[in-house]
Amino acid sequence: MDQVKHTGKLFIISGPSGAGKGTICSRLLADSDPERMCLSVSMTTRAPREGEEHGVHYYFVTKEEFQETIASGGFLEHAEVYGNCYGTPREKVLEKLAAGTDVVLEIDIQGALSVKKAYPDGIFIFILPPSMSILRKRLTGRGTDSMEVIDMRLSKTLEELSYIEEYDYVVVNGELEEAVSRVKAITIAEHSRVTENIHELIERYKEEI
Amino acid sequence: MDQVKHTGKLFIISGPSGAGKGTICSRLLADSDPERMCLSVSMTTRAPREGEEHGVHYYFVTKEEFQETIASGGFLEHAEVYGNCYGTPREKVLEKLAAGTDVVLEIDIQGALSVKKAYPDGIFIFILPPSMSILRKRLTGRGTDSMEVIDMRLSKTLEELSYIEEYDYVVVNGELEEAVSRVKAITIAEHSRVTENIHELIERYKEEI
Repeated sequence: MDQVKHTGKLFIISGPSGAGKGTICSRLLADSDPERMCLSVSMTTRAPREGEEHGVHYYFVTKEEFQETIASGGFLEHAEVYGNCYGTPREKVLEKLAAGTDVVLEIDIQGALSVKKAYPDGIFIFILPPSMSILRKRLTGRGTDSMEVIDMRLSKTLEELSYIEEYDYVVVNGELEEAVSRVKAITIAEHSRVTENIHELIERYKEEI
Repeated sequence: MDQVKHTGKLFIISGPSGAGKGTICSRLLADSDPERMCLSVSMTTRAPREGEEHGVHYYFVTKEEFQETIASGGFLEHAEVYGNCYGTPREKVLEKLAAGTDVVLEIDIQGALSVKKAYPDGIFIFILPPSMSILRKRLTGRGTDSMEVIDMRLSKTLEELSYIEEYDYVVVNGELEEAVSRVKAITIAEHSRVTENIHELIERYKEEI
């Protein structure tokens, strides 16, 4: 007999930019069977870039299609970034979960809070940099943002820290390997939780006698 | 900076006899730093056997001392087995937890339910055999019990299954390695839980700026 839980779980990997949530998600997915765990694919109105495939990297849709999906409550969350719309399609996620596949959603803190309202059964993991000074170093090292933008990001991060309470777990990403193995441990532990479907398991044992 | 939680946690490894909780506990302890995790040492009125050390295998006490400890509420649980008394000394466990060491307590289901009343913050893990027929085989294989006793144990196990709902986790012990790594994952995940002490962590980040 397999371990108890058979339906998939939604793991929300979230945190401030520079915390390393993207790297952690890549590592998580690279080490796992695609039948067991997959990354949530977002819907977007932006044009595909070279090499990007519909349904793999994004679902590419028109602005009208995106608006219709919003109107029908079809997103777990959605946001506009630099004039392009991005959203997490509810149906696609629920299909995967029903098929027994875990879904990993990498998302910023505001997005995670929206997902929590739409899907409170998700497992919310906050990825935290080891310190604010290390976060500053990481953001500076990227070389993509001016000092002003970085200062803005850091003060936003401080504000957003109070939302940790909305999460189930917090993982400090100092050592990448350590952080990845902690997130993996969380995904394993969550599948051993005693939940409502425990009755089914108990019945199976009773029928055997 | 270290991961969030600094105080130890009490992990209760419980389940029917023959489920393999003893083997799982030994493996868990063998692989871990004694500063990080230790086994709970019981108090007993039975005489020490060859090689058994006071404070290591058991705390050996007189019947009077045991009774006094009961009277002063000094046990997380206690029971009499074949005329000898056994109990989990509350103070010893709390000292370890306060020092930041996790404590692992291997105990039967009735004992676990008593511990839950005395220490609801414990993490309760139910170890389940993969099936009743495999449990029967394991108990028969031990060669220590008559068929009658085994039948009694099996029907007791079926009754006790309904207590799974009182537990936090259930781990099916089909493959030992798989079960051990699941229990390990649970101990790691539990140390990443967002708990009350998250405020302290947030304050540390805010002070840094």
